Amino acid sequence: MKTSYFILALLLSIAVCRSIADEGMWQPYQLPAMAKELVAKGLEIDAKSISTLTEFPMNAVISLGGCTASFVSSKGLVVTNHHCAYGSILHNSTPENNLLEEGFLANDFDQELPASPGSRVYVTEQVTEVTEQVTSGLEKQTGNAFYQGIEQREKALIADCEKTAGYRCQVYSFHGGLEYYLIKQLEIRDVRLVYNPAGSIGKYGGDIDNWMWPRHTGDFSFYRAYVGEDGKPADFSEDNVPYQPKSFLKVSASGVAEGDFVMVTGYPGRTNRYRTAIEVENQFQWTYPNSLELREKLMEIIKQTAAEGSDARIKYESTLAGLANYAKNFTSMIEFYGKSAMLSDRKQREAQLATWINKDKQRQEQYGDTLAQLDALVAQSQEYKYRDLILSYMRYSSLMPTARRLYRLANEKMLDDMNREPGYQQRDMPRFKSGLERMDRRYDAEVDRAILLEMLTRYGALPTSQRLPALDKVFAIGKTMDKAALASRLQTMYEKTELENMDVRLAWMDRGVADFEASKDPFIQAAVAMYKTDRDIEQQRKDLSGKFMKVRPRYMQAIIAFNRDQGMPVYADANSSLRVTIGHVKGYSPEDGLLAKPFTRLEGIVAKDTTVEPFNSPAAQLELIAQQTYGDFYHKPIDSVPVNFLSTLDVTGGNSGSPTLNGRAELVGLLFDGVYESIIGDWGYDDQTNRAISVDSRYMLWVMKYVDKADRLLEEMEVVYND
Amino acid sequence: MKTSYFILALLLSIAVCRSIADEGMWQPYQLPAMAKELVAKGLEIDAKSISTLTEFPMNAVISLGGCTASFVSSKGLVVTNHHCAYGSILHNSTPENNLLEEGFLANDFDQELPASPGSRVYVTEQVTEVTEQVTSGLEKQTGNAFYQGIEQREKALIADCEKTAGYRCQVYSFHGGLEYYLIKQLEIRDVRLVYNPAGSIGKYGGDIDNWMWPRHTGDFSFYRAYVGEDGKPADFSEDNVPYQPKSFLKVSASGVAEGDFVMVTGYPGRTNRYRTAIEVENQFQWTYPNSLELREKLMEIIKQTAAEGSDARIKYESTLAGLANYAKNFTSMIEFYGKSAMLSDRKQREAQLATWINKDKQRQEQYGDTLAQLDALVAQSQEYKYRDLILSYMRYSSLMPTARRLYRLANEKMLDDMNREPGYQQRDMPRFKSGLERMDRRYDAEVDRAILLEMLTRYGALPTSQRLPALDKVFAIGKTMDKAALASRLQTMYEKTELENMDVRLAWMDRGVADFEASKDPFIQAAVAMYKTDRDIEQQRKDLSGKFMKVRPRYMQAIIAFNRDQGMPVYADANSSLRVTIGHVKGYSPEDGLLAKPFTRLEGIVAKDTTVEPFNSPAAQLELIAQQTYGDFYHKPIDSVPVNFLSTLDVTGGNSGSPTLNGRAELVGLLFDGVYESIIGDWGYDDQTNRAISVDSRYMLWVMKYVDKADRLLEEMEVVYND
Repeated sequence: MKTSYFILALLLSIAVCRSIADEGMWQPYQLPAMAKELVAKGLEIDAKSISTLTEFPMNAVISLGGCTASFVSSKGLVVTNHHCAYGSILHNSTPENNLLEEGFLANDFDQELPASPGSRVYVTEQVTEVTEQVTSGLEKQTGNAFYQGIEQREKALIADCEKTAGYRCQVYSFHGGLEYYLIKQLEIRDVRLVYNPAGSIGKYGGDIDNWMWPRHTGDFSFYRAYVGEDGKPADFSEDNVPYQPKSFLKVSASGVAEGDFVMVTGYPGRTNRYRTAIEVENQFQWTYPNSLELREKLMEIIKQTAAEGSDARIKYESTLAGLANYAKNFTSMIEFYGKSAMLSDRKQREAQLATWINKDKQRQEQYGDTLAQLDALVAQSQEYKYRDLILSYMRYSSLMPTARRLYRLANEKMLDDMNREPGYQQRDMPRFKSGLERMDRRYDAEVDRAILLEMLTRYGALPTSQRLPALDKVFAIGKTMDKAALASRLQTMYEKTELENMDVRLAWMDRGVADFEASKDPFIQAAVAMYKTDRDIEQQRKDLSGKFMKVRPRYMQAIIAFNRDQGMPVYADANSSLRVTIGHVKGYSPEDGLLAKPFTRLEGIVAKDTTVEPFNSPAAQLELIAQQTYGDFYHKPIDSVPVNFLSTLDVTGGNSGSPTLNGRAELVGLLFDGVYESIIGDWGYDDQTNRAISVDSRYMLWVMKYVDKADRLLEEMEVVYND
Repeated sequence: MKTSYFILALLLSIAVCRSIADEGMWQPYQLPAMAKELVAKGLEIDAKSISTLTEFPMNAVISLGGCTASFVSSKGLVVTNHHCAYGSILHNSTPENNLLEEGFLANDFDQELPASPGSRVYVTEQVTEVTEQVTSGLEKQTGNAFYQGIEQREKALIADCEKTAGYRCQVYSFHGGLEYYLIKQLEIRDVRLVYNPAGSIGKYGGDIDNWMWPRHTGDFSFYRAYVGEDGKPADFSEDNVPYQPKSFLKVSASGVAEGDFVMVTGYPGRTNRYRTAIEVENQFQWTYPNSLELREKLMEIIKQTAAEGSDARIKYESTLAGLANYAKNFTSMIEFYGKSAMLSDRKQREAQLATWINKDKQRQEQYGDTLAQLDALVAQSQEYKYRDLILSYMRYSSLMPTARRLYRLANEKMLDDMNREPGYQQRDMPRFKSGLERMDRRYDAEVDRAILLEMLTRYGALPTSQRLPALDKVFAIGKTMDKAALASRLQTMYEKTELENMDVRLAWMDRGVADFEASKDPFIQAAVAMYKTDRDIEQQRKDLSGKFMKVRPRYMQAIIAFNRDQGMPVYADANSSLRVTIGHVKGYSPEDGLLAKPFTRLEGIVAKDTTVEPFNSPAAQLELIAQQTYGDFYHKPIDSVPVNFLSTLDVTGGNSGSPTLNGRAELVGLLFDGVYESIIGDWGYDDQTNRAISVDSRYMLWVMKYVDKADRLLEEMEVVYND
């Protein structure tokens, strides 16, 4: 009888789950209004606490800039994904002491290693709505003037906010400019690598398993945040002390079961859930297919130019991986768009919205023209779309963009800091410099030239109406394309330039406009020759952006009002700001007749293992699994230790490293990926296929205890066991 | 409460299923002893009835020679797989009336079309144990003499049995020669095509989905057996009448559910469950990898020589498909052997057997030396294994084997019919002739020559000790291989030969040895030159077979005794004779984190559809699915009509077309394939991954009713509905 009751309860709980969608990346302030639903879904702590950034658990969740992480001890211990700490692991690796291959475990504080330059821990301390400050008084401005006006206000707010030393501030726009929030984050600059498992655990499955299920990746690593003895952010120093966070997460050794409530707080990057039908159509039927073709061509060029195993190839491995990664992403986008009803759904949404607007005269006046205006702007933005795409992929060559960036800096420096373009302000200079330094590691002249040649050849094949006279002139591209002549011209330019030399590049940071104009370096000359055209294009782009920033908020206002009318809250598209998402541990059906189960097991690692990277588990781990050493981390329903698990959480890039929390806000996993079918989720959440992948906390603890013997950290953390 | 009781019952029934293995291809006579287990598993009819060939349901299950089928009406209507009727569908197709593409439905008896030449329906009427008759008195014979002795006895038994007109008889050896059974089958020669769905249903998924799950193939077609007005088998005649079988199967419109009992009666071809460890090792580590390499090379040669779209390529499409099919098969074999413990399991079985034998003096005397003897014979059989493999793949060229077969016939014809080699007796002549006729459709001189050149080049690279002097001489292959010289020699031979002409080939059937010896045809000359060597090799092979036939039965006796000691019955390896296998409807886990569900749904067809063959469903079918036209064939647990289903049934090639029966022996499906992970099942059944794939009877009926409107057949059959 007990069994049958249990199953009945399970069935009921599944029914409940189904009745409430798990879609939504909520701003914390929205949560208290949803408290009842959250409790019904399984939240056990006060919903208010997850809306207050200075309270547990929100103040334990931090940003690394691009990834999310969380404090897991009172001494500033930070857990995040292995792939988020990747740069720091590589930075500390030498051929003799390869931390990526062997793993790394500091046995004491003084063994903890400085993270890669520029590594930061950002603790969000304040979120202030600043819509009024950003927009008021600009109502009559349009186009570029409006854009610049908004930018000025934002810069002023940021400058004011950053007067407090040790803080970094940012203004985030929500709903395309309907709301603005100023976010103030403590910026901890002394970040150290504490522990990472071997790459054969931390990136088990590598690129092959990327975006895939079943998954068996131990994608976790540990940092520690250090501050000055005064408790304030400081540059690296041996005298620094571990940062004491206001709170930290407990780590669950009992984890979750199928159907359980989970939530994630983190910093999702970008979604496009409210784009119009025309934007969707253009993106999936034009942009993705064309971008995919360009990526494939670039990969082909790099592989042909830089022979496998050559020094040049090594420099481009990460570029190739990035190209392939998004080629896979776009392939999935195109495939599942073809299978989905996304376009007709958008059209239906727009038709419903139009019907709702037309029912009421006031609505008509307020929103009646928004979609048509948006559509017109979209059409305008597509006028030069193939040229724009080619020019944007020119960034895969380095010299030309570097020269342009340097000359831009010389020009911007003539302005007051506050009036400079973002990215060229004083606060951006450390990052600007490290960018110039990093170029060497990813640059080979022959490959760079081949990429530029390809892009310019494609550009040269455009009709004259699409071409840029200045660019034609710089590369002597005539009415008809002469590829041989172009190739020879590029060869001369690459032979003559001195920008390949890092010291030369850095020296140009300090030179004035006149120096550039007098330079004989062909790429500096090209940058000077292109400057006016580049600014004109930028001006046009900003003008268009300014127009979008006028219309999109009104369109979103209409959508919000329409939804409110039906009692439905609206979440904003992701914009790298802190969000909360709620879901359940749940499998899915990748195709008819197949079911992806919510958990993978230790034994699955052994089954995948080929002894060849990326399926080369450490021998010790294979041995532990063979002996069924499960310890306290055994999960009865799967008769093993869970490795990764699926959930319905609505997440995207930027959420990597986010703590996956149970109803008591205990860490039960680390979010690190989504399944292949949910890549398209950035454009629309589908509760049947949208699944996030987390490393199970039980696997993390199991590796720490048995494989890597990280007892020091296990003792430092608060590991909790449920009944 | 009802729900929970139901689930509890389900859990219990699953527990019961698990406790009894579903492995075993049982000879009908073995079943009554297992009656209790069969009832526990779900058999609802008397176990004795499935052991009696002349009773329902056994007498409704028939052989097509290579495939299984069953009677489904009192008027001789036969259902089998689409791929089993494939030859007849092609045979009746013309470019204007393409039955493969369009499907075919006879609206009345007189519209039913003659099946392809040689098509037969075999109704098994009698199975007699003849071990005594076959083996007694031969105890002292060994090697070739023993082999010939057994063959003589078999031929005599067959000749005697076939004295009854209209019957075909066969002696089957079980357990490598431990038991012999004479099987007498009514041979119905007038077989007609009644109905086949369009190829886009009947072979939906094509080679891509072959051996794969999820699967959505409507692999069914209908024949009808016709006999003379006297009720006896007769050649095709318009006066013939439908055969009236003693019984026929009812077709279930209610089908099966997950966990349900199913059984299959059919004619599985060949398994190797009792091969020794050394045989397993050689097969998986040498034979499969080398055969795979040869197949891939042959496919490459055919594709290079016969350009895509050429007439030559069309002739080789089916050869290519066959090569690819088993290349896929061998790839799976190699892959899953690597993942399995098959070799160590065999070694363990042998060790356990040895321990058991050594425990008892009598056993020692009886079986003590069998494994060592077997191993020695295996070693002997491998002496020329690479040469033998190359020579066997030479069959993919046509001229050389055809010439050899023809000259062999001339020689055999000098003997009494009873003394001729099987395949060259009078009873074999119709098949021999149609083989010579068929050659044209699959022959292109250039491809044939390229294949022969490749095989001879490989042969010529063998060390002299492995070579055959006669073969060297025929093709002037010297100590070192001169490929150019060989190519030119072959070119001349192909130019000179007249065997490409069908009439010439057929004429050679009637010529004597002297004619061959006097012939100037280079391939006839080659056949004559090779004759003695061919016979010597055959002699050696038979001698070895005779030795195996002495030892293997004793080894099997030991295994049977060993198992009996533990109360376990032993089934014989498959040998194309009638077997019964029992199983359950059940999914499986193809890999950790994934579950193959037991049913696929109509909607899965739509999801797979690309409009391009082999995923090009008829528009009418897609429309019916879009409208959710499920009719009486709806299966609630999957909220649709089931298309294909998985079960634990232990089957192999030859079982194709077998009726999948429920506990009341109603037809609930047609067996047509196994999953990729179970290809290795021919060597060892694994209850975790061995899954057979059946077309669901509900999908068959749904297609018949809604897509093809085959009301005439639906009325003729007895379609039954359960509550």
